[in-house]
Amino acid sequence: MKVTFQIEGGSPVQVDCNAGDNLLELARRANVAIDAPCSGNGSCGKCRVKILEGEVESFPSRHITDEEYEAGWRLSCNCKVIGDCNVLVPDIASAYQSRMKTADLSSPEEVAIFEQAKKNMEQEGAIPFTNSFRALQLEMTAPTEEDTMPDIERLQWAIQAAEPEALKVQIPYTVMVKLATVLREENFRVTVKGQLKDDTFTCMELCGYDDTAIVGAAIDIGTTTVSMVLVDLSNGAILAKGSSGNGQIRFGADVINRIIQSTKPGGRKALQDAVVKETLNPILGNLCRSAGISAKSILNIAIGANTTMNHLLVGVDADPVRMDPYIPSFFSWDGLKAGDLKLVANPLAPVIIAPNIGSYVGGDITAGTLATMMWDSDEMTLFIDLGTNGEIVFGNRDFLMSCACSAGPAFEGGDISCGMRATDGAVEAVTIDKETMEPTVTIVGEPGQKCVGICGSGIIDTISELYRTGIINAKGLFVREGDRVKRDEHGMGRYVLATAEESETGREVSINEVDIDNFIRAKGAIYSGIDTLLQSVDMTPDCIEKVYVAGGIGSGINMKNAVNIGMLPDVELEKYHYIGNSSLTGAYAMVMSNLANDKCHEVAANMTYLELSTYPGYMDSFVAACFLPHTDSSLFPNSVQEM
Amino acid sequence: MKVTFQIEGGSPVQVDCNAGDNLLELARRANVAIDAPCSGNGSCGKCRVKILEGEVESFPSRHITDEEYEAGWRLSCNCKVIGDCNVLVPDIASAYQSRMKTADLSSPEEVAIFEQAKKNMEQEGAIPFTNSFRALQLEMTAPTEEDTMPDIERLQWAIQAAEPEALKVQIPYTVMVKLATVLREENFRVTVKGQLKDDTFTCMELCGYDDTAIVGAAIDIGTTTVSMVLVDLSNGAILAKGSSGNGQIRFGADVINRIIQSTKPGGRKALQDAVVKETLNPILGNLCRSAGISAKSILNIAIGANTTMNHLLVGVDADPVRMDPYIPSFFSWDGLKAGDLKLVANPLAPVIIAPNIGSYVGGDITAGTLATMMWDSDEMTLFIDLGTNGEIVFGNRDFLMSCACSAGPAFEGGDISCGMRATDGAVEAVTIDKETMEPTVTIVGEPGQKCVGICGSGIIDTISELYRTGIINAKGLFVREGDRVKRDEHGMGRYVLATAEESETGREVSINEVDIDNFIRAKGAIYSGIDTLLQSVDMTPDCIEKVYVAGGIGSGINMKNAVNIGMLPDVELEKYHYIGNSSLTGAYAMVMSNLANDKCHEVAANMTYLELSTYPGYMDSFVAACFLPHTDSSLFPNSVQEM
Repeated sequence: MKVTFQIEGGSPVQVDCNAGDNLLELARRANVAIDAPCSGNGSCGKCRVKILEGEVESFPSRHITDEEYEAGWRLSCNCKVIGDCNVLVPDIASAYQSRMKTADLSSPEEVAIFEQAKKNMEQEGAIPFTNSFRALQLEMTAPTEEDTMPDIERLQWAIQAAEPEALKVQIPYTVMVKLATVLREENFRVTVKGQLKDDTFTCMELCGYDDTAIVGAAIDIGTTTVSMVLVDLSNGAILAKGSSGNGQIRFGADVINRIIQSTKPGGRKALQDAVVKETLNPILGNLCRSAGISAKSILNIAIGANTTMNHLLVGVDADPVRMDPYIPSFFSWDGLKAGDLKLVANPLAPVIIAPNIGSYVGGDITAGTLATMMWDSDEMTLFIDLGTNGEIVFGNRDFLMSCACSAGPAFEGGDISCGMRATDGAVEAVTIDKETMEPTVTIVGEPGQKCVGICGSGIIDTISELYRTGIINAKGLFVREGDRVKRDEHGMGRYVLATAEESETGREVSINEVDIDNFIRAKGAIYSGIDTLLQSVDMTPDCIEKVYVAGGIGSGINMKNAVNIGMLPDVELEKYHYIGNSSLTGAYAMVMSNLANDKCHEVAANMTYLELSTYPGYMDSFVAACFLPHTDSSLFPNSVQEM
Repeated sequence: MKVTFQIEGGSPVQVDCNAGDNLLELARRANVAIDAPCSGNGSCGKCRVKILEGEVESFPSRHITDEEYEAGWRLSCNCKVIGDCNVLVPDIASAYQSRMKTADLSSPEEVAIFEQAKKNMEQEGAIPFTNSFRALQLEMTAPTEEDTMPDIERLQWAIQAAEPEALKVQIPYTVMVKLATVLREENFRVTVKGQLKDDTFTCMELCGYDDTAIVGAAIDIGTTTVSMVLVDLSNGAILAKGSSGNGQIRFGADVINRIIQSTKPGGRKALQDAVVKETLNPILGNLCRSAGISAKSILNIAIGANTTMNHLLVGVDADPVRMDPYIPSFFSWDGLKAGDLKLVANPLAPVIIAPNIGSYVGGDITAGTLATMMWDSDEMTLFIDLGTNGEIVFGNRDFLMSCACSAGPAFEGGDISCGMRATDGAVEAVTIDKETMEPTVTIVGEPGQKCVGICGSGIIDTISELYRTGIINAKGLFVREGDRVKRDEHGMGRYVLATAEESETGREVSINEVDIDNFIRAKGAIYSGIDTLLQSVDMTPDCIEKVYVAGGIGSGINMKNAVNIGMLPDVELEKYHYIGNSSLTGAYAMVMSNLANDKCHEVAANMTYLELSTYPGYMDSFVAACFLPHTDSSLFPNSVQEM
């Protein structure tokens, strides 16, 4: 049998298959990207396809209306092939998986974050942004009958003359094989790029005179989104910036589903390819073009990624990470080279992985903690990273406690029917008029961009506004009626942010009671995590002197709204600071600075991990937090419902 | 057009081609092995093929008789394709290129050479045969909820417990990717193989409990023949031994022709593949099977090879080696790993290349010099390596002089019409009855093996016996007539060692005046090289206290005959020692012993190179040596012609 996938905006893909094959599995095998955040168990409703010709066997789903079913829409995870068919894979399916974005330079605000990090670290932390990478311009005399020194010695002498600290010079194979050719083609005037470490200069690249930069790549590999900057290793300048969805998304939205997929035959390779070949390498290639540099000039790479992401990146068996007793292959490991992963970079470039401290607090958090400078501060600091799940660190220069919350992917648009990431078409900010119940929305993208879905910051705003205006109650149920409040045949309420006519896609963008319930559990997990972490050191929210909130949940987060719904503790708003992608900022520091790298490992070694699931009182705290704002409203004196 | 090669004893190969294509080039492109030691200039006559169907355009050649021409025999280097044809590639063509030979263990005599080398070096040179490679049997406790140490730390601790000198433990990518899997599959009982160097233990292999050896490969890459032993790195025992022809032979018999071929498009890759993929890897694979070890257990490799061979092996541009001012890419280089060349071995295994000291005195000679122990001796020692060309070293612990002779490949059977290497069917020793002129021959192979051709030691014997018995004169011309002496239509004489009926192949095995002339030039080059080297230090042959003769020219060499024809100086025969393949013996020492490796580099650094071609008096010396035994017969009082 044959199934043809008609990909909206792409070329069709035909696959041979057998009767009974699952349509989603088939798409994965054929590398056809269909979003399936729930990894194919029918709960998320994102893997919609339209059967154009032929028939499939499938069950009804609450995610497909009767009219849609009639028109051929199905959840692909829920379809068995019973004959040849022709399947439309709508582009809306990839709305969740954002398109790649690259830029020559990041926006001034973004550049400012990196500049600030450099300044903080150098001035406050006494951590200079210097590293061991060098570019040397060399001019040698050509050999003669009187001067018959072999090429390698000629080069070694020239390097030692230019870099007197290099007592030894190491020439690896990649340089050796082209040495004779390059020296003669370039008339013995060459540029050598390499690393000076422990008196040994290792040549990493040999080319003709070249005044382009030596480059580092700082990378945040999120479960959902991958972000990257190329930096000039000589001065820390940002050369290019880019991001895209993590290609692993089609294997599941969360780390558990990814690990399960990786244990299937060929799974480790498939997951590794999805992040390396489909995600990192295209971004690296684009950024090199933007910055006008050769990939061979990328001499150093630092990666902030959670434990599962860095295990799947390396290609090790990640199953022990999720199975009792939860043992990662590594916390810290310094043996990786770009060539091992076939990254688009100099194959000899070391790949620094920010250290994990446990199965569920990984390098993204240690890199982020490095970036906050809380390890150097007297102030009691709370650091919250809202990614897929959420991780929390609390402490100061004297101690650091951390925990991971089972918040799920709601802050990145997962588990929300119209959720999406903060890319073009995402509602990122919302206010609702108390009287008319009409929304005013801010949408990511160019002016005139219509609405596609809702991203994390938009969800926080919507729920806060629905609660403030009394449209929903403390349990998240709809209690007012109006044009914007709809109910389905089972009576489930939803609030319409954009009607089918108003939206970009022709499908209504709304938030329903299931979404709200999912979100309340997510925010409850965050709040109870903070609460438990504070309790574990006998402190209360009023001890908090500073709060850093990180995460790619929009251009920022409305802290007032986040406090209003009881997601974040009700402390003075001026204590809150949104710091963007702290994992990326930390990776930037690590790629630029040997000492920052050492410091991150020191911070990780000193950080205590609190396992919430077995901590006494955590479940009670979580249940109490699953209300708007909280069962104990005295904790949120500033949360308002304007009845 | 299509050409089909019918390979005797193999499958036919069909190639598309154009009118005018050269048949030998076509065969090379199609990887059909046709010997062409002269690289296709028509001089060697080895590239014979038989046109079975169709026609080709070709010139007559002195190497093809009229009857042979009539029957369809041609020199393939000399054929242009003019239409479809069917070409027989006879197996005789590959007689020159010996079949691979491998054995579980080498013969007792061969083992004795290695044992002697170890004994000499350890006892006389105070160079212990110890190295930095280790196999560690580890037993760890499995992780529990109380012991959640990550796998990498668990392994690092176990290694440090087993090897207290390992202050640091390095886990490379190849081990990391399988760490979690192997630990669990093997219940945390594993064997680690690796290298302890400068306080750091580098894991090179991780596997289940394994009591097989950690292995080193010692390799001699000759221009003509490649030989190899696998050794147990823990005690120096020989595990397996093998050899085969160097697959590069189809690109030319000597280094100059190989370099020229390597400069053609794709040439460097083709020459590298010919030695790595077609030669080294098949031998390595066979030896691993013989020894019952995994290729991953080969942790260290040492290679003795001349400058061109090691440049072509690495894949660097070798053209500067042959072009004025003759600049190699490297003399000494320690950056190579087995993985760089994709050798059948542990990819992390260092590949030690014995150091070159010039374009024409390479690592085979420095390794050989190491093996002779002359660097540790008071005796004035002469070391002669008869390979393709010949290299000479003279000196003792106080000084070492070396030179390369343009002797060509005659000692390995090249430049000789019925020449072949010392493999099955080669005549390796000859006596001739003075009266009857009948030969008595010793043939390599099982009893009953018939004659295929003549190898180096057989050529020396034949010419010496022809001279002793007065069949040829001092110029190498035939002066007696008889059944065994034939003349062709031009009057050129030849001596028949085996008639067409007596031979294995149905072709006469003989030695003609051109062969003898070629050989006299070769032996003259060796003698005049020795003479000039001695002159350069104001010495004469009677200063020589010891002579080592090395080279794969048979199971040995009849020194009396070599002196008789004026190839080697006329000193007491008991000073002569045949030491077999000294490059391989030296590589054996280097793979086994860190100190032997250091010593070889020290010997190379202290060795002076004498360029014969520009040395005053060398040409006169050469011309004087191109007689039997020499124009100045007083130099050879023991050379006899029984008139």
